[in-house]
Amino acid sequence: MAYTLRELAEVAGAVLRGEGHIEIDSVAPLNRAGARQIAYCATPRYRELVGASGAGALILHHSDADVFSGNALLCDDPRAAFARVAGLLHAPRPIAAGCHPSAIVHDSATVSPDANIGPQAIVEAGAVIGPGAVIGPGAVVGERTVIGAASRLEARAIVMHDCVIGERCVIAAGAVIGGEGFGYARERDGRWLKVPQLGRVVIGNDVDVGANTTIDRGALGDTVIGDGVKLDNLIQIAHNVKVGENTAMAACVGVAGSAVIGKRCLVGGGTGIMGHITVGDDVEVTAMSFLKGSVEGPGRYSSSLPAVDADVWARNLGRFRHLDELARRLRRIEQTIKQILSGGKH
Amino acid sequence: MAYTLRELAEVAGAVLRGEGHIEIDSVAPLNRAGARQIAYCATPRYRELVGASGAGALILHHSDADVFSGNALLCDDPRAAFARVAGLLHAPRPIAAGCHPSAIVHDSATVSPDANIGPQAIVEAGAVIGPGAVIGPGAVVGERTVIGAASRLEARAIVMHDCVIGERCVIAAGAVIGGEGFGYARERDGRWLKVPQLGRVVIGNDVDVGANTTIDRGALGDTVIGDGVKLDNLIQIAHNVKVGENTAMAACVGVAGSAVIGKRCLVGGGTGIMGHITVGDDVEVTAMSFLKGSVEGPGRYSSSLPAVDADVWARNLGRFRHLDELARRLRRIEQTIKQILSGGKH
Amino acid sequence: MAYTLRELAEVAGAVLRGEGHIEIDSVAPLNRAGARQIAYCATPRYRELVGASGAGALILHHSDADVFSGNALLCDDPRAAFARVAGLLHAPRPIAAGCHPSAIVHDSATVSPDANIGPQAIVEAGAVIGPGAVIGPGAVVGERTVIGAASRLEARAIVMHDCVIGERCVIAAGAVIGGEGFGYARERDGRWLKVPQLGRVVIGNDVDVGANTTIDRGALGDTVIGDGVKLDNLIQIAHNVKVGENTAMAACVGVAGSAVIGKRCLVGGGTGIMGHITVGDDVEVTAMSFLKGSVEGPGRYSSSLPAVDADVWARNLGRFRHLDELARRLRRIEQTIKQILSGGKH
Repeated sequence: MAYTLRELAEVAGAVLRGEGHIEIDSVAPLNRAGARQIAYCATPRYRELVGASGAGALILHHSDADVFSGNALLCDDPRAAFARVAGLLHAPRPIAAGCHPSAIVHDSATVSPDANIGPQAIVEAGAVIGPGAVIGPGAVVGERTVIGAASRLEARAIVMHDCVIGERCVIAAGAVIGGEGFGYARERDGRWLKVPQLGRVVIGNDVDVGANTTIDRGALGDTVIGDGVKLDNLIQIAHNVKVGENTAMAACVGVAGSAVIGKRCLVGGGTGIMGHITVGDDVEVTAMSFLKGSVEGPGRYSSSLPAVDADVWARNLGRFRHLDELARRLRRIEQTIKQILSGGKH
Repeated sequence: MAYTLRELAEVAGAVLRGEGHIEIDSVAPLNRAGARQIAYCATPRYRELVGASGAGALILHHSDADVFSGNALLCDDPRAAFARVAGLLHAPRPIAAGCHPSAIVHDSATVSPDANIGPQAIVEAGAVIGPGAVIGPGAVVGERTVIGAASRLEARAIVMHDCVIGERCVIAAGAVIGGEGFGYARERDGRWLKVPQLGRVVIGNDVDVGANTTIDRGALGDTVIGDGVKLDNLIQIAHNVKVGENTAMAACVGVAGSAVIGKRCLVGGGTGIMGHITVGDDVEVTAMSFLKGSVEGPGRYSSSLPAVDADVWARNLGRFRHLDELARRLRRIEQTIKQILSGGKH
Repeated sequence: MAYTLRELAEVAGAVLRGEGHIEIDSVAPLNRAGARQIAYCATPRYRELVGASGAGALILHHSDADVFSGNALLCDDPRAAFARVAGLLHAPRPIAAGCHPSAIVHDSATVSPDANIGPQAIVEAGAVIGPGAVIGPGAVVGERTVIGAASRLEARAIVMHDCVIGERCVIAAGAVIGGEGFGYARERDGRWLKVPQLGRVVIGNDVDVGANTTIDRGALGDTVIGDGVKLDNLIQIAHNVKVGENTAMAACVGVAGSAVIGKRCLVGGGTGIMGHITVGDDVEVTAMSFLKGSVEGPGRYSSSLPAVDADVWARNLGRFRHLDELARRLRRIEQTIKQILSGGKH
């Protein structure tokens, strides 16, 4: 499916420069795009590729307009404009409604006639699958769980019983939503007594959950993921966590139980967030950090420790282990100098 | 199913205060519980909610007895008492014995008539499924693997060939038990030669394994998980690791090959444990730490680094990178001062 | 299947000492091996077990020849020799070609008659399965994806659409190859606009991907994993990452988008690698580190922080938080001392 450059300019909200009538049928990288393709440049990192691009048109920031002499869509945010254009040119295929004969759908489940239930998918008793929803190959929808309109479970994704997934969500392959929270009481002899996990996972609209990510159900109340939240792969969200609207977390983040995270937060990859803390709106945490206490927003927090040459690291680490002693020695020196300067007896 | 408060007091091992005859049918949070519900308070954090609770009864620590004037179960450990009460009121449904027609059970497998084999579950040749065991939707039991009585594999959990799972275990959705360990010999040119992984995973009784957690089989000997161990989600246990009884690990922990971990240890989320080390009994490691060497127990170990304001962090980190130089300068100062004080020539 | 010790010496490229005609049928650990078994010792850690071993033969380093008086294969690299011997004695069963009746194979897929398609496996439209390939129980091969000769997808492994897996690869249970990359443009109000992920994952020959590991497809170009790469469990490889030949990563590593990693690198467990950086050939990064910037190879890099007694840790950490202030105080002392020594006014 091709669109004219003029149509794309409109979708992108960009200023058209050049031939509005040319047809574009796909997107491509700057250095590989051909005459019927459009590419973009959003960072100075790739600006050197712009001039030589063979693309039919480029999406550029206004300030880069002069770097390229061909057809262009000029705008303030080339990446957002590209997302819109690419979303149009590479729109997902329309859903083929229906239920694969190998799927197991319980009689008491309610499946919209517009939904697609893939091969070997399982829809358990009382589940509700909304219009336009896709339950991918081998995906599992537990008892009484609700999957909202136009949401998609990819291959082998699992949403356990009594959970709620909003509209237009993507639950990626292998993700597990609604597992039992990690809740135990400890007996005197060290044995663990399971605390039943009776809450749900409630996910808003337009939420993406990455591959093999896990979100546990609440112990008593619910685990709640707000509208527009984006979670990357291999993330752990523990029981009773709340994640505010449009917060995004990169891969391998772990959020411990009952943490409350604000709206529009950005959490870097590999970061850990302590349980029972509160994180304000618009908080950014850098990659590989450990957010241990509550913080207000907006703000940027870090404990990420960049790697250096291993020998240099070992030397500094050796000193770190005696930092307290080092600080005490410094204090003593200061006192001695004070005595020297005051001419006092030492 | 409802119980009288007196019955619940007995199960909880708590002192009954108030009307023993009232009926309780479920648990609820302090601030949402109604007349037929029971709630609990185990931490000062929630004590302010106690007085206003509309619960039919509360489970409280003896020292909180005066905060609430209604029916109460008084005890030393409200969380453990609550676990017992909730376990009774919200007991899992009895297993419906039988095998779903879509399950694939090999002729040579031995499945107890009391077991439940879910839709699209796979039980391979020579596997043994004990009485009361549940093999969830799409779960896979490999060749010759034994699943003990009353153990449960949740949806899509996988236990590969020749492994042993004890009794009353829960292997959560997406977990992979018995994958091949990461064992290679390196050739001169950098290529890797696979070392066959011939051991098993042997899991004791009452073990919980979290969603998408992975436990690799041993290379020659076995990987062994002791009775009562609780593993949260997205944990990696490498080949030949031993985990002692009743040890608990929070999510996202990684344990490298051949580590031997004691009994009743507590491992915080995101922590890494080095291979080939020995960790004593009753060792606690705080979240996001790296246990690199052997440690004796009991003890508490940490290298967790809490995030602070990113600018403050950057300044201190800049100094850290020159910590060795800083320590040398301090040493020089001390020597100079010594000379000054001795009146010597400098 | 048994082999004579002479045959094993030849396979191992080792010097035979003792009775070449004895038959060996399996491998075993040093302390449990019997007369028809062979064991090995590659590290001083286990040398004390060598003398007392009941093994029919041992694989030893030349320098350990005197520690054991029995039959031996002597060589420079006992671990590599063992890998070869064990690979022969414990060779995988030959593939039973064919397609399980419960598998769902699309009419337009091309499946080699020599391939094995397991129970409930799914092979989607246009996919190509090479000779000798194994698609394990419940594994999913997406549309137009190519699985090379003799490659194996274990239980429930998923390779999404339009990906390429080379020859002799192992994609372990629960792994997800080809999920959508985490790519969004941010709108002014904080909402996220999805950037379509149009690239592929292209995996070379002899690559191992661990259980529940995730590798995302490229945004425009491809995510590329070179020949001979070994990835452990629960690793995240983001979109457009390139991993060079024979690089190995231990479990729980996260590699952010567009990172380019060289050949023969060794990445320790739990380490994070920043996006858009370049890592040279033969770089080693220690466990639990954070490689934030580009580095050249060869080299060894670290920011791993070993745990110590929690009280000691807390004291040093408290000082770390004032490291910048501490460094400033040190500077002032140096200036003061300079003034003292110069006899100047202070």
